[in-house]
Amino acid sequence: MYLIQGLIETALKEDIGSGDITTDNLVAHDAGGHGVIIAKEKAVIAGLDIVYRVFEQLDPKIIFRPECKDGDTVMDGGIILKVEGKLRSLLVGERTALNFLQHLSGIATHVRSYVDRLENKKVRLVDTRKTTPGLRVLEKYAVRVGGACNHRMGLYDGVLIKDNHIAACGGITKAVKHIRNKVSHLIKIEVEVSSLDEVKEAVTAGVDVIMLDNMDIGRIKQSIKHINGRALVEVSGRITIESLNRLADIGVDIISIGALTHSARSVDLSMRIE
Amino acid sequence: MYLIQGLIETALKEDIGSGDITTDNLVAHDAGGHGVIIAKEKAVIAGLDIVYRVFEQLDPKIIFRPECKDGDTVMDGGIILKVEGKLRSLLVGERTALNFLQHLSGIATHVRSYVDRLENKKVRLVDTRKTTPGLRVLEKYAVRVGGACNHRMGLYDGVLIKDNHIAACGGITKAVKHIRNKVSHLIKIEVEVSSLDEVKEAVTAGVDVIMLDNMDIGRIKQSIKHINGRALVEVSGRITIESLNRLADIGVDIISIGALTHSARSVDLSMRIE
Amino acid sequence: MYLIQGLIETALKEDIGSGDITTDNLVAHDAGGHGVIIAKEKAVIAGLDIVYRVFEQLDPKIIFRPECKDGDTVMDGGIILKVEGKLRSLLVGERTALNFLQHLSGIATHVRSYVDRLENKKVRLVDTRKTTPGLRVLEKYAVRVGGACNHRMGLYDGVLIKDNHIAACGGITKAVKHIRNKVSHLIKIEVEVSSLDEVKEAVTAGVDVIMLDNMDIGRIKQSIKHINGRALVEVSGRITIESLNRLADIGVDIISIGALTHSARSVDLSMRIE
Amino acid sequence: MYLIQGLIETALKEDIGSGDITTDNLVAHDAGGHGVIIAKEKAVIAGLDIVYRVFEQLDPKIIFRPECKDGDTVMDGGIILKVEGKLRSLLVGERTALNFLQHLSGIATHVRSYVDRLENKKVRLVDTRKTTPGLRVLEKYAVRVGGACNHRMGLYDGVLIKDNHIAACGGITKAVKHIRNKVSHLIKIEVEVSSLDEVKEAVTAGVDVIMLDNMDIGRIKQSIKHINGRALVEVSGRITIESLNRLADIGVDIISIGALTHSARSVDLSMRIE
Amino acid sequence: MYLIQGLIETALKEDIGSGDITTDNLVAHDAGGHGVIIAKEKAVIAGLDIVYRVFEQLDPKIIFRPECKDGDTVMDGGIILKVEGKLRSLLVGERTALNFLQHLSGIATHVRSYVDRLENKKVRLVDTRKTTPGLRVLEKYAVRVGGACNHRMGLYDGVLIKDNHIAACGGITKAVKHIRNKVSHLIKIEVEVSSLDEVKEAVTAGVDVIMLDNMDIGRIKQSIKHINGRALVEVSGRITIESLNRLADIGVDIISIGALTHSARSVDLSMRIE
Amino acid sequence: MYLIQGLIETALKEDIGSGDITTDNLVAHDAGGHGVIIAKEKAVIAGLDIVYRVFEQLDPKIIFRPECKDGDTVMDGGIILKVEGKLRSLLVGERTALNFLQHLSGIATHVRSYVDRLENKKVRLVDTRKTTPGLRVLEKYAVRVGGACNHRMGLYDGVLIKDNHIAACGGITKAVKHIRNKVSHLIKIEVEVSSLDEVKEAVTAGVDVIMLDNMDIGRIKQSIKHINGRALVEVSGRITIESLNRLADIGVDIISIGALTHSARSVDLSMRIE
Repeated sequence: MYLIQGLIETALKEDIGSGDITTDNLVAHDAGGHGVIIAKEKAVIAGLDIVYRVFEQLDPKIIFRPECKDGDTVMDGGIILKVEGKLRSLLVGERTALNFLQHLSGIATHVRSYVDRLENKKVRLVDTRKTTPGLRVLEKYAVRVGGACNHRMGLYDGVLIKDNHIAACGGITKAVKHIRNKVSHLIKIEVEVSSLDEVKEAVTAGVDVIMLDNMDIGRIKQSIKHINGRALVEVSGRITIESLNRLADIGVDIISIGALTHSARSVDLSMRIE
Repeated sequence: MYLIQGLIETALKEDIGSGDITTDNLVAHDAGGHGVIIAKEKAVIAGLDIVYRVFEQLDPKIIFRPECKDGDTVMDGGIILKVEGKLRSLLVGERTALNFLQHLSGIATHVRSYVDRLENKKVRLVDTRKTTPGLRVLEKYAVRVGGACNHRMGLYDGVLIKDNHIAACGGITKAVKHIRNKVSHLIKIEVEVSSLDEVKEAVTAGVDVIMLDNMDIGRIKQSIKHINGRALVEVSGRITIESLNRLADIGVDIISIGALTHSARSVDLSMRIE
Repeated sequence: MYLIQGLIETALKEDIGSGDITTDNLVAHDAGGHGVIIAKEKAVIAGLDIVYRVFEQLDPKIIFRPECKDGDTVMDGGIILKVEGKLRSLLVGERTALNFLQHLSGIATHVRSYVDRLENKKVRLVDTRKTTPGLRVLEKYAVRVGGACNHRMGLYDGVLIKDNHIAACGGITKAVKHIRNKVSHLIKIEVEVSSLDEVKEAVTAGVDVIMLDNMDIGRIKQSIKHINGRALVEVSGRITIESLNRLADIGVDIISIGALTHSARSVDLSMRIE
Repeated sequence: MYLIQGLIETALKEDIGSGDITTDNLVAHDAGGHGVIIAKEKAVIAGLDIVYRVFEQLDPKIIFRPECKDGDTVMDGGIILKVEGKLRSLLVGERTALNFLQHLSGIATHVRSYVDRLENKKVRLVDTRKTTPGLRVLEKYAVRVGGACNHRMGLYDGVLIKDNHIAACGGITKAVKHIRNKVSHLIKIEVEVSSLDEVKEAVTAGVDVIMLDNMDIGRIKQSIKHINGRALVEVSGRITIESLNRLADIGVDIISIGALTHSARSVDLSMRIE
Repeated sequence: MYLIQGLIETALKEDIGSGDITTDNLVAHDAGGHGVIIAKEKAVIAGLDIVYRVFEQLDPKIIFRPECKDGDTVMDGGIILKVEGKLRSLLVGERTALNFLQHLSGIATHVRSYVDRLENKKVRLVDTRKTTPGLRVLEKYAVRVGGACNHRMGLYDGVLIKDNHIAACGGITKAVKHIRNKVSHLIKIEVEVSSLDEVKEAVTAGVDVIMLDNMDIGRIKQSIKHINGRALVEVSGRITIESLNRLADIGVDIISIGALTHSARSVDLSMRIE
Repeated sequence: MYLIQGLIETALKEDIGSGDITTDNLVAHDAGGHGVIIAKEKAVIAGLDIVYRVFEQLDPKIIFRPECKDGDTVMDGGIILKVEGKLRSLLVGERTALNFLQHLSGIATHVRSYVDRLENKKVRLVDTRKTTPGLRVLEKYAVRVGGACNHRMGLYDGVLIKDNHIAACGGITKAVKHIRNKVSHLIKIEVEVSSLDEVKEAVTAGVDVIMLDNMDIGRIKQSIKHINGRALVEVSGRITIESLNRLADIGVDIISIGALTHSARSVDLSMRIE
């Protein structure tokens, strides 16, 4: 959580700007208050620690009492957390704290709905880099809270060779051979392919993971048969929540879905001050 | 657009981290390329300039050729923009550029669907502060691109007195009187009320805008009748896309909807490199 | 005060640079000390909290004992505050703390001299954006401490249409009509005018505030007569401390004076260490 | 000038905030304009390059045509500079550019009035660290433009031993002996003294500069006689513009005056856009 | 190279501080100059682009003419690069540019001496995280320039389970099983072991890489025999330049050496200005 | 130490990046631990406070127990410090803390070996600006800990006129005369010379320090004889640890050696967690 200090400061600054002209003028400097954050719909909660961090920025002596933990499901009307401190800090930080919590809980809730569909299948459901600019680390955290796994965090912690890289290099074989010695031995090599020929070349080249991009179910089956355990198989594109189990059943190892992050709506939460 | 330089740098850094290990190792430093960004579904476009800024960060000599402008509707398969420059910069910047564009276009598209429902009614549809942390200025820009208006940008450019402020001050009358002399004469005073008694007190206190919070349609009508033009009337909460016209017809001046920003999903865009 | 952390750090860094080579070499790391800040002339104090923040940056355990509060008048020789902590921190922070305090108290003292002249007239005395770069929020705070009000904080929290905007738009009427729907409903529209014809057009266009720029007293009277309460009247330019009451008497609502901030000299303060 | 980039960005951000809502809504993105900055009173100009930098931030293609150079005296009505570029950039940057220029020119003008009094005496007139927080480098630059010299820039580029340092160390002799070996051989040692006994001890200790603090003219003469060229003599405190020449005549080497920076008012400048 | 902008600015600021008081006062603003950077000893060059970036910060129109490329060996007296621009910029940037270049070339030269010893053996020589704070990305780049490979870049792009992690988890088996599902499928799992029993447990747990920590040659042989290709074998600790080939010959896959970065001295370079 | 906060944050961020994927997944959030940092070879310790700062960033409640102080010599196997707190924080911060400590202690140890050679001679051994980019203040601190002195910290706190400055100005005499009035009276003037003629001109010009650059011992003697106490004499270039005493004996005041900072290797330290 050390990593998100900058984002919290940015978020508070964009809301407070030159000052909360309502609160600063109407609420006494030393008045205290209690806040309660409540779910207005069923939600998987993610981001409790950030709520604490937001209020702590404004009032270092804030008292924070979570009533659940990240990953818990809270029902409509359920209490998520209580916070106690300066009334000014509660009012000034309320919107920013809620914006974080409802956004991340929205993702966790959305992801959980996919995970629940999987019926404990062995397949690994993963996110993509289709995240909101500036929120990558947090959104990927919410994906894990929701029960899915992360694909690489960015361009720096995994090799994913796409068609343009292949073209620039003169083929999968050359690309894989070349890059193996350039990157850390702790990094695996994944290649994105769209035909069975490419699958074959990738297997021969010794890649660690093969991503079957936008293939239909028949082609996926053929590919898995050919690969036969010599590489992990990732499927991406054209995936609906309905097709998850089918893909799992035919032996896909990894299913990546951009919608986990880019199409989750915020859950409805509110803060009551007492 | 001067204001978002920091966000663009943050977004690029979170994706690139210590380096794009695939591209840096497989694509020649001086290779050039052409990119085309295409809509994969009908979308109202918002954020073209940011796409340019992202690529320009990576390659100051990038050539940028938009095929539409912000606010235009592009159909499935339509070309949004072309970009030409170093192949490395195109590959490294692709995801960040798309993440901005699909997020903001998602909001603009969502907002447009509300605006289209309004059938040119005189009512003003506005957003809220329920935005993604760090993206406030951009998301509110996308709301305007979609055809709606902005509520205040943050806590600093409008007075909105809520129940907690009222309680802390000893009543609406006191609060309004007190704050009028404290804030700039260019700032209006809005009060959030939930009963007819409060409406009456607010009118007497001379507020500029009255927000009817979570009132049913009957109570809203009564309030408008009482207010009778002496303040602008804003309605908030419990609003669906279906109820917009009805609210407009009974004389509401402003309808604020958090969902404009917090529940828009990204539109599907992709970049083809040639 | 959350907002000025960056400025305090910048101020300390510009003074300390690579280190206080005198203090670091001559004063023991663990020596303690007491500091007393004293007025060397009569002054309205503004900025006590910043003094605390400066020393707290250098020594988180500093003990701060203000002997007055912002807005109080302290006489020559009067004690403003006491501070107790590491001697090194007192010596290193002394100049930065005093520079803030004497600058802001200088403004508050200067403003108070204007306010005292007004003899409780109803007119609102306001500052402008003619502030020292980087210190806007603090200087406008000092203006309020001195007893005057703030005009808009920046370009973002108020519309002020000047001659160049009008020319670019094709007239006051067009400009006002156009902008009303573009900005938040909590923002008022002010137009700067320099002739009676412009006053008339502004009233007809329904602006909220009319700024009479550099008009003589006769023209101001004519304008007020024409406006007749349909907009607030602001007067700017050519204002001396002597003319304040006269402007108030003829019905001006707002008088804006750049000199409140840009021509205040620092008050003389010093710190004695014991 | 490489050093002040951060300050320029801060100044623009504090004025622009979330956007110039007047200009962005009323002036076309591609409209061009000419600006002329004019003196409204006689002034010594300082800060031309900063004006350029401010506008360049907003419009990298700005054309800048200074009509004078830093240090020149411009008469009331005289043209200081012309600038040509996007009208939006001129309007958005105007206030920030002027705020820098009128503040720094204010200092240069104030300093020049002291320097002119000196009638080419050999004495060195210097500033102090009593500067506006965040503007140290610029204000000290304006002092040089005005014709005076700089004392140390901060705590890092000169040793100035004051009474508290002396007390903490056990005497001037010990302090000077101790610190000589701790700091770079390019740094001189100055001691602040308030009695003739201290003067004597300082001379014996071999300090480079002796600052006579708040001494009357008789004591200053005695001190200079005793020092007799063995150290530079600086006088500080109780100095008026009238006493400058007298101090110079009795052999003072350096006169330091805080008022050079902390009590200069802004000069009156304005920008006309055509 | 987009990533190191912040470091270059920091480096320039720490040297320039409040200004280069020698150059600014003695060299005309518009004087031009030519600089030539020369090797004063045989060196493998790394960091040419950074030299360009340093001077470009100070003079955007600088002309940069490298006479070699990163990885080339330049002999004593050989010309590395030429640079042409403002004389002030050359003098101000000289030390910072050289400090980067001689530090990175020092590492590249040091690494090359190890690589040359390896006589084209198949073993992979890698660095560690023992780098100078703030220079990680650059120093690891210099390692690659010198001809060796990188271990993980930081704590984020590779799993390396050490004794404390194992203890905290209750054994290698548990640790490996647990973490496999938590991290991206593109990240390999490495375990650090110090006994043959641990080697066996690690193999059974299915780790990707086994680091033999501080083992003697006999134990290393036994371990390799047991592992038998089921995991990559890394050796670390007690390694001298003399033992490299021996380790390669017995089948070690990876040798990691902290000294590659933490014990390289700068090479001697100088800049001549003409 | 206030000054290095930014560097510590940068160092931690470059190592942690998007998270310590090993520790975060294997060690419980609330587990505690004890760390002991031990010398693996004889070393002069420098940087204890930075170690504390690194761990404090990660765990504000860390307990820090140094077993020695900066400047102490610790033998192989000796305990340097103990630290107690969250196990996660110890594991995450370990490498960064050690990287600082072993780098700075490496310099202090290297410097001490020079100082010990000097046999209490009166000559002043000083460093140069040949430091690692970003670490200037810390490395110069380590030099002082090792027992040597600092030359100027940067371009801002001392005048050092080199051949290019002289050429740009038209001679030493002109340069010295010109600059004396431009810089603070607390700054001394040093000139770098390479011939006896230049020595003579420098003495006549009244410089404070003369740097004899790359002169042989005979020329140095002649120069000292001519200078005869009228300026401090600094020798630079071609200096080995063997020649130190000889230079001291012939009357050199200052010997500057770049190798103090740029050629020190890290000392070997390790952290054991219990």
